[in-house]
Amino acid sequence: MEPLRAFCGPIIHALSASELEIIPSGAIVVNSEGRIQLLLRDVNPNDPLGPITAAMPPAPPDQPPTPIAIHQLLPGRFLIPGFVDTHNHAPQWEQRGLGQGMHILDWLEAITFPNEARFADPSHARRAYASCIDGFLRQGVTMASYYGSLHGEATNILADLCLEKGQRAFVGKCNMSRHSPAYYRDASIQESLDVTEACIAHIRKVDPEGKLVKPVLTPRFAISCDNEVLRGLGEIAKHNPDLPIQTHFNEAEQEMKATKELFPEFENEIDLYGHFGLLGERSILAHCCHMTEYEMQRFKELRCGVAHCPASNMTVGGGFMAAPVREFMRRGIKVGLGTDSGGGYSSSMLDAMRLAIVASNAREVMSGGKDKGLSIAEVFYLSTLGGAEVCCLEGEIGNFAVGKAFDAIVVGTTGADQGIMTMVGEDEGLPMMFEKFVMTGDDRNIIQVYVQGRLVKG
Amino acid sequence: MEPLRAFCGPIIHALSASELEIIPSGAIVVNSEGRIQLLLRDVNPNDPLGPITAAMPPAPPDQPPTPIAIHQLLPGRFLIPGFVDTHNHAPQWEQRGLGQGMHILDWLEAITFPNEARFADPSHARRAYASCIDGFLRQGVTMASYYGSLHGEATNILADLCLEKGQRAFVGKCNMSRHSPAYYRDASIQESLDVTEACIAHIRKVDPEGKLVKPVLTPRFAISCDNEVLRGLGEIAKHNPDLPIQTHFNEAEQEMKATKELFPEFENEIDLYGHFGLLGERSILAHCCHMTEYEMQRFKELRCGVAHCPASNMTVGGGFMAAPVREFMRRGIKVGLGTDSGGGYSSSMLDAMRLAIVASNAREVMSGGKDKGLSIAEVFYLSTLGGAEVCCLEGEIGNFAVGKAFDAIVVGTTGADQGIMTMVGEDEGLPMMFEKFVMTGDDRNIIQVYVQGRLVKG
Repeated sequence: MEPLRAFCGPIIHALSASELEIIPSGAIVVNSEGRIQLLLRDVNPNDPLGPITAAMPPAPPDQPPTPIAIHQLLPGRFLIPGFVDTHNHAPQWEQRGLGQGMHILDWLEAITFPNEARFADPSHARRAYASCIDGFLRQGVTMASYYGSLHGEATNILADLCLEKGQRAFVGKCNMSRHSPAYYRDASIQESLDVTEACIAHIRKVDPEGKLVKPVLTPRFAISCDNEVLRGLGEIAKHNPDLPIQTHFNEAEQEMKATKELFPEFENEIDLYGHFGLLGERSILAHCCHMTEYEMQRFKELRCGVAHCPASNMTVGGGFMAAPVREFMRRGIKVGLGTDSGGGYSSSMLDAMRLAIVASNAREVMSGGKDKGLSIAEVFYLSTLGGAEVCCLEGEIGNFAVGKAFDAIVVGTTGADQGIMTMVGEDEGLPMMFEKFVMTGDDRNIIQVYVQGRLVKG
Repeated sequence: MEPLRAFCGPIIHALSASELEIIPSGAIVVNSEGRIQLLLRDVNPNDPLGPITAAMPPAPPDQPPTPIAIHQLLPGRFLIPGFVDTHNHAPQWEQRGLGQGMHILDWLEAITFPNEARFADPSHARRAYASCIDGFLRQGVTMASYYGSLHGEATNILADLCLEKGQRAFVGKCNMSRHSPAYYRDASIQESLDVTEACIAHIRKVDPEGKLVKPVLTPRFAISCDNEVLRGLGEIAKHNPDLPIQTHFNEAEQEMKATKELFPEFENEIDLYGHFGLLGERSILAHCCHMTEYEMQRFKELRCGVAHCPASNMTVGGGFMAAPVREFMRRGIKVGLGTDSGGGYSSSMLDAMRLAIVASNAREVMSGGKDKGLSIAEVFYLSTLGGAEVCCLEGEIGNFAVGKAFDAIVVGTTGADQGIMTMVGEDEGLPMMFEKFVMTGDDRNIIQVYVQGRLVKG
């Protein structure tokens, strides 16, 4: 009989945007499916097995109890949920950091399209995507919503590699049938849609239950899609009510102005994407920097989710933008964080959290004090449970609630685990270690990473 | 005869705020004093010795030529000047990352004073300062302007350790005779000044020529100093025309308001510090977030330098502030970067550069487009030559001009050096590698560090 695993030690996770639970000595029992069977909040570290056994449902009379393997965390270590990166361009992994100071459309032309075009070559895709997935797993990203390139084969490779390496992911072939150079554009409207359907079919074949990897509809943005492509994707969405949908939304003034010129019949992007049947609770809309009252209301009604990407919003893409995250949260609009690697210069969700604090502090000034800056607990929520909600995966991941998958990070903060972090002496408490990790840690403090109970780092 | 060393490979440094020099295949010849004897801009990597020997002054007729040891950089590596951190609180090294969301004076009371008070214990100081210096050298900070705690002995230990470990530094005992808790305050006005003089004397004894370590006058800020302390420090400055002076300046509204209440006789901080004889070209003024036209003009006339600290300005300390760096540069006011560790959450000058870009982008928006965001070349200048100018060390360090000390970093970007950086294939050029390093590198890409020719890392 495969033993249950019990991870024993300090545990920190978000119960909601306003509730950070800090458990100094707890235990998480994980079953053979990689699901959380039990969360205990007060376990004697010298005798974890006793209380765990007592809390387990009794074995049937004629069966022996399931054995339990104890994984006791070393001193200075604690467990947190894996990070959810709600907006990530997998083919841009290797170009990250380039193109500072460029506006979004110029950056696409000069840096991004030439790089993404290389994914026409499956061997390039295999090498670059393997590096990408390894790089994000190493940094604790247990779930990523990936934009692929426009290529069907490369997109299938990305999905295969996520499965193979054990990263939870949404994977989408990027639709772009116009307004990009001829060397990097869907061959036709029909091909754009056909390749999309083929990728969906492939991903459903390799992961029939979508346990780890799911397809996602991925129109790059309205500028790059003919009306027929948007309409076709809306049709696919209608016939596949489980499919998530992702696109860029109100990212930058240059982009919004170009969109308005192409679609003069729509007052705003929410009406545009809504018209084509692309908005609903499954929609993950990246950036959302500039929002009118009407768009805010529609977001709430439609239950769209926001992928907030502070790194790219404050650097590449057209200057400095601080999305109204506090206002989204106040209205109950779903928000998560995205690295936006490579528009975002950092591939670290820790940086995304820090930069979300910076952006929210700027927003506080720009709103005349109305939108208060975000706390560490709040950005941690955004990077875990908030992201899960945006992906409609809050029943599966985001924290350590019983029944969810065990997607987790073992954080180390002392001794050999320390990296560049520093501690105030030996007596540092758990809340302080956590705060230090969020503000000053990096992948060297991410000792082990689990996805659905499978060890994928460490 | 001790051989000269010739470092051969790609070299990148700032000639000025607007001129970044990229030398694909150069050589820097370093003499036994650790000074740059020669900078060659076009050296055949397959035969570096020939052109170097040809460029050397001929040996006297009766002496053999000085031997030259070639240090050829490995592929993917390049040389840049060491980073100059113009604002760094050494005793806060271990508290970095704590206190997010607090305003400056509350943060001092709750986090900083209790931590700094521990430096009354010399053994604590020795351990913590050794960790601090190692940590910054590891990250390529070859010169730091350090605030110590208020303790004389601990401050002397900091200076001794900088010398021992080979970090160039200004080291100052922090003056704070009032408005802090009784457990962490100078015992009296006289003691505040006496300890300052004793520290200056100690540092001049251990490094008589100030070749590596120099004392710096360090009134914490006006709030924490009685008038007699400020006056006494002004007197010391007058009698020691070589001494640099550092303090905090117009950091945050809460701090500025409290200063104004304590010193109603002064309209602003420039008149205040100027009155006490603390302003001049040797003054390193941290933050300078809120500047009137009058203060800008006085800065220029007095030749004061600005230590711009974007990490702390945008997080702890009272919300979000973006200092007018572009305006400083336009007016020819000296500016450098500071980590402000630990008000700044990051101890990395690479983060300081990235966050200086973020802050400048915010400033661009806030100034209605007038103050353009900073480029990578500009923030690189600020972190090297700009910082040297702020410290009046531009004749010594900041770039690879002949005659300067060899304070340098060997950056690695490929293979085992790669860290979390990623490259776009094999054909990536030097400018792109540099851009990537600045935006996405970390201490793992800092392979070797030299101060005055001495290898201090790697």
